[in-house]
Amino acid sequence: MMTRVAVVGATGYAGAELVRILAGHPKVKLAALTSRQHSGKIFSHVYPSMAGIVDMPCEEFSADSLAESVDLIFMALPHKLPMEIVPLLLRKGMRIIDLSADFRFLDVTLYETHYQPHTCPELLKKAVYGLCEVYTEKIRSADIIGNPGCYPTCTLLPLIPLIKAGLIETERIIVDSKSGVSGAGRSPSLTTHHCEVNESFKAYKVADHRHNPEMDEVLSREADKPMHVTFVPHLVPMTRGMETTIYATLKNQAGKEQIRNCIREFYKGRPFVRLRSEGIAADTLHVKGTNFCDIGIHVDQAAKMVVLTSAIDNLVKGAAGQAVQNMNIMLGLDETLGLMAVPYPL
Amino acid sequence: MMTRVAVVGATGYAGAELVRILAGHPKVKLAALTSRQHSGKIFSHVYPSMAGIVDMPCEEFSADSLAESVDLIFMALPHKLPMEIVPLLLRKGMRIIDLSADFRFLDVTLYETHYQPHTCPELLKKAVYGLCEVYTEKIRSADIIGNPGCYPTCTLLPLIPLIKAGLIETERIIVDSKSGVSGAGRSPSLTTHHCEVNESFKAYKVADHRHNPEMDEVLSREADKPMHVTFVPHLVPMTRGMETTIYATLKNQAGKEQIRNCIREFYKGRPFVRLRSEGIAADTLHVKGTNFCDIGIHVDQAAKMVVLTSAIDNLVKGAAGQAVQNMNIMLGLDETLGLMAVPYPL
Amino acid sequence: MMTRVAVVGATGYAGAELVRILAGHPKVKLAALTSRQHSGKIFSHVYPSMAGIVDMPCEEFSADSLAESVDLIFMALPHKLPMEIVPLLLRKGMRIIDLSADFRFLDVTLYETHYQPHTCPELLKKAVYGLCEVYTEKIRSADIIGNPGCYPTCTLLPLIPLIKAGLIETERIIVDSKSGVSGAGRSPSLTTHHCEVNESFKAYKVADHRHNPEMDEVLSREADKPMHVTFVPHLVPMTRGMETTIYATLKNQAGKEQIRNCIREFYKGRPFVRLRSEGIAADTLHVKGTNFCDIGIHVDQAAKMVVLTSAIDNLVKGAAGQAVQNMNIMLGLDETLGLMAVPYPL
Amino acid sequence: MMTRVAVVGATGYAGAELVRILAGHPKVKLAALTSRQHSGKIFSHVYPSMAGIVDMPCEEFSADSLAESVDLIFMALPHKLPMEIVPLLLRKGMRIIDLSADFRFLDVTLYETHYQPHTCPELLKKAVYGLCEVYTEKIRSADIIGNPGCYPTCTLLPLIPLIKAGLIETERIIVDSKSGVSGAGRSPSLTTHHCEVNESFKAYKVADHRHNPEMDEVLSREADKPMHVTFVPHLVPMTRGMETTIYATLKNQAGKEQIRNCIREFYKGRPFVRLRSEGIAADTLHVKGTNFCDIGIHVDQAAKMVVLTSAIDNLVKGAAGQAVQNMNIMLGLDETLGLMAVPYPL
Repeated sequence: MMTRVAVVGATGYAGAELVRILAGHPKVKLAALTSRQHSGKIFSHVYPSMAGIVDMPCEEFSADSLAESVDLIFMALPHKLPMEIVPLLLRKGMRIIDLSADFRFLDVTLYETHYQPHTCPELLKKAVYGLCEVYTEKIRSADIIGNPGCYPTCTLLPLIPLIKAGLIETERIIVDSKSGVSGAGRSPSLTTHHCEVNESFKAYKVADHRHNPEMDEVLSREADKPMHVTFVPHLVPMTRGMETTIYATLKNQAGKEQIRNCIREFYKGRPFVRLRSEGIAADTLHVKGTNFCDIGIHVDQAAKMVVLTSAIDNLVKGAAGQAVQNMNIMLGLDETLGLMAVPYPL
Repeated sequence: MMTRVAVVGATGYAGAELVRILAGHPKVKLAALTSRQHSGKIFSHVYPSMAGIVDMPCEEFSADSLAESVDLIFMALPHKLPMEIVPLLLRKGMRIIDLSADFRFLDVTLYETHYQPHTCPELLKKAVYGLCEVYTEKIRSADIIGNPGCYPTCTLLPLIPLIKAGLIETERIIVDSKSGVSGAGRSPSLTTHHCEVNESFKAYKVADHRHNPEMDEVLSREADKPMHVTFVPHLVPMTRGMETTIYATLKNQAGKEQIRNCIREFYKGRPFVRLRSEGIAADTLHVKGTNFCDIGIHVDQAAKMVVLTSAIDNLVKGAAGQAVQNMNIMLGLDETLGLMAVPYPL
Repeated sequence: MMTRVAVVGATGYAGAELVRILAGHPKVKLAALTSRQHSGKIFSHVYPSMAGIVDMPCEEFSADSLAESVDLIFMALPHKLPMEIVPLLLRKGMRIIDLSADFRFLDVTLYETHYQPHTCPELLKKAVYGLCEVYTEKIRSADIIGNPGCYPTCTLLPLIPLIKAGLIETERIIVDSKSGVSGAGRSPSLTTHHCEVNESFKAYKVADHRHNPEMDEVLSREADKPMHVTFVPHLVPMTRGMETTIYATLKNQAGKEQIRNCIREFYKGRPFVRLRSEGIAADTLHVKGTNFCDIGIHVDQAAKMVVLTSAIDNLVKGAAGQAVQNMNIMLGLDETLGLMAVPYPL
Repeated sequence: MMTRVAVVGATGYAGAELVRILAGHPKVKLAALTSRQHSGKIFSHVYPSMAGIVDMPCEEFSADSLAESVDLIFMALPHKLPMEIVPLLLRKGMRIIDLSADFRFLDVTLYETHYQPHTCPELLKKAVYGLCEVYTEKIRSADIIGNPGCYPTCTLLPLIPLIKAGLIETERIIVDSKSGVSGAGRSPSLTTHHCEVNESFKAYKVADHRHNPEMDEVLSREADKPMHVTFVPHLVPMTRGMETTIYATLKNQAGKEQIRNCIREFYKGRPFVRLRSEGIAADTLHVKGTNFCDIGIHVDQAAKMVVLTSAIDNLVKGAAGQAVQNMNIMLGLDETLGLMAVPYPL
């Protein structure tokens, strides 16, 4: 039987990527697409690559109408809108995977410090942080998923196993991340103007990005003590992809093999985390268009530091792909369904 | 039943793209990969994006060994090598799809003028030019396919219907083509050096490219008289994609609607040719990673000229995708099998 | 003695390029910069590359204030605004180089068909079309220059010598042009969004671009009969640069050497037009950041066609550089002053 | 009086950039260019952007011939070749600026551990490390300069003032650097192939790059105790530019203003180091083609860490520009001569 799903906010980049994956998913019927900006238009007129493949119209959002036609909803809206809509949808019995930050935090004051007042704080306890490989069990039975941010996904996957195993110090961890431009969304701005991006590499929101408290809260939970990492995001002149280089101090004389074994064991049986070979760093080109998170492991012996490199496609494992993986887990399906096309060689 | 196939020359860009498509094809078993340069290596060590997906070894080419293990062979070798190998493989009963120029020409002197002496000219009559939408019937029963060049594919698909219908003059046709860098192959050279490509746009081999006689021969056959187009290829600073802008003089007071209807009728029922909406030109971004050929139709009334724009992914419809489409036709399968993944929005 | 100049509209891309060139010009004092959007800001806060070099403030436009402080004005505003301002400035005795289309046409109905009603048509006769190498004498004494569009510059420079010499047919000329993204200006839009530009190549405004009548008018004047070329612009995923490939039918058995000699003679002593060596096409990379127009000459013997390739930097020879060259000519200076920095190797 | 200079190894990217700067330098006569690969060719045939500007021939290297015609030599050769040539040139009375690593180290064993046996270790004491803003006095009278590597330049300029002032801990400093592709040189390889670079971001030689001991030696000297930083270089899909993000622990309750004042004071009167405004990070786009090093200063209060961002053009301040700046200092000229063209806005 097919699960009927809707994508709310289908014409942003994350929304369109959801449409791509869901339109090819063998157990899903794409029942509705909504878009404020493009309502009334055929989806493939907005994204002509899908002409002949996804020719559904985009509709205005209507909770009532969705309640009749779908079982599960993907929300790909800007922060703030989801928390106004989700309570209503939950009451109508739908399960929800929300790609905004509105349901990612357990601690409402943390959310409110970095975003705005929360209008349904009581739902935060009900919501599950959808980091698929880490919170699988909770995800299974969740009705509402806070789908992780792209930077936190790329950072937490390599870090959590080492934190839980106590192989690294929890202090002075450096997270130096680099993202392609699609992470900035589809709305035109000087930041995304080709001529300002091209041949430009720069940090932004240095130690001041809202994904920092998101990482910190999850890490603190896993470490069972307050943690704070120093996080600096950068913009790379490319469309898709995110690379993160993490620096942490080795504890208890841990060496490269121990680090490698720890991560390998942690993700045993989980197909979307791939360890790179000895000495090879993660490369965004190798995960482009896929739901993989590649991880490279390196050690600076002289400084007793481990250096982790991780790469994801920010729109897939960092957004739409992980969202569909969450759906697969929620529905009791194989978690790879719809996500395992053979990757492009380049 | 699964058809067992091999890719000979699997580690070049066209070869790797064949591997990608065939590894995901529901009716095919990828039985062997050969590579001179990388023989002995695991394929995914050469293309790490496919780690965990295509972990077969690359072998040295051996006709005997292939004869035992496969039914059909894709050849993705440089010109000249295939004509030395193909006769042997045919005698062993294999069917062959060759991506080089060695079996694209009917007229051996044309081939020999632009390439080198041909070592098995008798096979040229047996070989079928694998322009799928045009020579479907011949392809069905062919044992050897000369898979079309990327530029000819992108040029012939929009032109042939109009030539056959007599809607345009056969003289003074201009074909102004632009290709991404992957068309130059994987061997490093100054031409493909990032710093020489980036922020560079230029023509090359002006009116002197070997795909010109290939187009001319096919067009002459379809027009039933000698034809020659003026063809200029250009290099675009991007990885994949090819756009062609064609200029031809309208005949018999043909107008835009007549042109549009002619092309639409010609490709009726053929899913890989898509007409763009009124006024919209073909865009390489919309066919990236797909087997589509998008066509835009425009008219310059003042000059009585039709302007056609066409876009393909040079590695897919311009090489590996069309090759697999040819295989599908040869095997009596739906021609879209393995080629209809939902396209990426960007 | 230094000429005092102002740039009106200094913070758009063409304006900023004017600032770059004029700030380094040995005979010019950059006396005022105006910007509606950024008035009150330091110029180098808008363009931080120039921090420490151009730290002047941007002002609101004021004709009175400019009349007191400057001798010559560069206008880098969108079409329509200049024609409202220019009459006033002329009356105050200033000389003007306008980068918009407002003063490029002789025939006001042509302008009005493609733009809007003209508010000072009487000035069109007074204005000189600033194609420096062609209209040098008229430019010397002009008070108002209509600085040519980028596409017309790149097209007219290679074509005019052949038209005047009668070496090519004036009919059925094809002009296939390709521009970098900076030509679209600095205002953010989906068209200039990095993710929509990157890995995209496409035609736009096919046979419907407003630079087409501009070319046609100039060519008609030079040919002394009505001319119309078929013009198709394309967008290239790069910041700067424009390449044009022109196809024309050879007349009177003209050959490659005759064509080459004609162009060489025409531009004798003019340092900004460079002929590429035999067989080599013009490349945008080789003119990046310069005021050069490189021209390549090729012949398709079988079709009796000449193929010209030309390359300019759309912001320099296609806009700000040519404007400064016009100023040099108007002031009786060496036309290369301020424009002859050694080009970057890449 | 003009100083006569030669560029040995003129056709690599650093060499060509030297040619660009020196050809426009007001106090220099470019007397000879040598190139093994292109000897006999006109320089502008190798770099056509300079056609009509630098039309000198490239010669084979000959110490005797150079001794007659030049006063000062820039060496832009791969490591190992310079140390074989330099002793000879010195004996002939020439002054030398070497862009390789051969004369950058004081400690010969450090060089030999990371490169190869040194053939003239006695010269290392004579050589001066050409970090212009730091070792100005020594450079003045030097006969041989070891021109700093690009990564060390971008790292040392922001770090040294803080190390000398004791404002940061000397341990656990993280240096996360990102370089454009031109840093890999002009020789084609898979690493520089456009299709492998484009849409790829990755670390390489993690904690294993030969610029690491170079930085460490200089820092140790300045700190007057052994120092080691953890250094990870990354490759960015762009031609020019290098960004470095440095993480260090604040000492003695130093705050952002103290850090800013320290760096500002240190570089007072030095035009090539620019501090970015409060909260703004350094951007490679803003230093492209220039000799500037832009520095941004940020603090992560929660972690008591300072985060420094620095940006240079790897071919200018990271190679040829700094080399010419060294020459200016050696010759007693204004250090900005030939290096102060107005930067491009984009």
